[in-house]
Amino acid sequence: MTIDMEIICVGNELLIGKTLNTNAQWIAQQATTTGINVKRVTVIADDINEIAKAIRETLSRKPQFAITTGGLGPTFDDKTLAGMAKALNRKLAVNTEALKMVKEKYETYARKKGAGTVELTQARVKMATLPEKAEPISNPVGTVPGIRVDLADSFDGVARCSLGNESHLQRNGSTAA
Amino acid sequence: MTIDMEIICVGNELLIGKTLNTNAQWIAQQATTTGINVKRVTVIADDINEIAKAIRETLSRKPQFAITTGGLGPTFDDKTLAGMAKALNRKLAVNTEALKMVKEKYETYARKKGAGTVELTQARVKMATLPEKAEPISNPVGTVPGIRVDLADSFDGVARCSLGNESHLQRNGSTAA
Repeated sequence: MTIDMEIICVGNELLIGKTLNTNAQWIAQQATTTGINVKRVTVIADDINEIAKAIRETLSRKPQFAITTGGLGPTFDDKTLAGMAKALNRKLAVNTEALKMVKEKYETYARKKGAGTVELTQARVKMATLPEKAEPISNPVGTVPGIRVDLADSFDGVARCSLGNESHLQRNGSTAA
Repeated sequence: MTIDMEIICVGNELLIGKTLNTNAQWIAQQATTTGINVKRVTVIADDINEIAKAIRETLSRKPQFAITTGGLGPTFDDKTLAGMAKALNRKLAVNTEALKMVKEKYETYARKKGAGTVELTQARVKMATLPEKAEPISNPVGTVPGIRVDLADSFDGVARCSLGNESHLQRNGSTAA
């Protein structure tokens, strides 16, 4: 059986040609190595409507998996989670588990710097504000957790669709299957 | 007025991660520099149906321009022209002007090598077999002509949509506007 996957890359920097899309190549390599068929890569802007549209279009093509990369950070231009929530008709809510992951990261950073208590600023809480029923994935190389969304119940014909991010892939060198 | 453009990259090598998509970055840079807004990059396989589907989807989003890159060469896996013809419901036919361009290229190569007459093999004719009403664009850096298709008459709401290839862009350092 062929396992089809699509990659969605979010980032204005890719669309203006400032940044070379090495993430897409990296993910494609990892997926191909494990026998997954990468059917399409879509690059879109840091825009909630564009992200939501691209995710909906991707899901309508019914790949077994989709991986998004980019736009998960703490700043105002990181809109992937909001776009994902919109695409899936789910609300955004602070995920306790994700918040714990973010907090632990900043505590580790603070300890290394010999700093004091860690404040959970709005920007930090944002990284733990996920579409409902999303599962946070610990990120070993950065602060923001990855996200996995199982769409088996939501989309007819999609056997199982995970939306993850590349940080998770970097953790274990395999795809977010 | 914002001028929106989409880029469609065709090539299995991109989807398996063998090749880094420097073409997309290059085109995005050129377009951005001239004030064009690159809305989306889509990467798809060397497959007629995939190409046709991606082109149709791109046109349905009504950008003012779309540029395709890849899949114009002489070999069996170069399927962009066939995919384009399918997307536009146009027949493929040998374009006299394009054939002349291809022939002249091979004659130049032959002269440089001191070789004799140039044979227009099936593979060479393939590069001049364009969707009907497509306009060939001379390619200064390679053999295969670029293609421009004006869709003003074909697609409601698309003011003017050109499908070009990056070789043309390399000629004059500007977009195929």
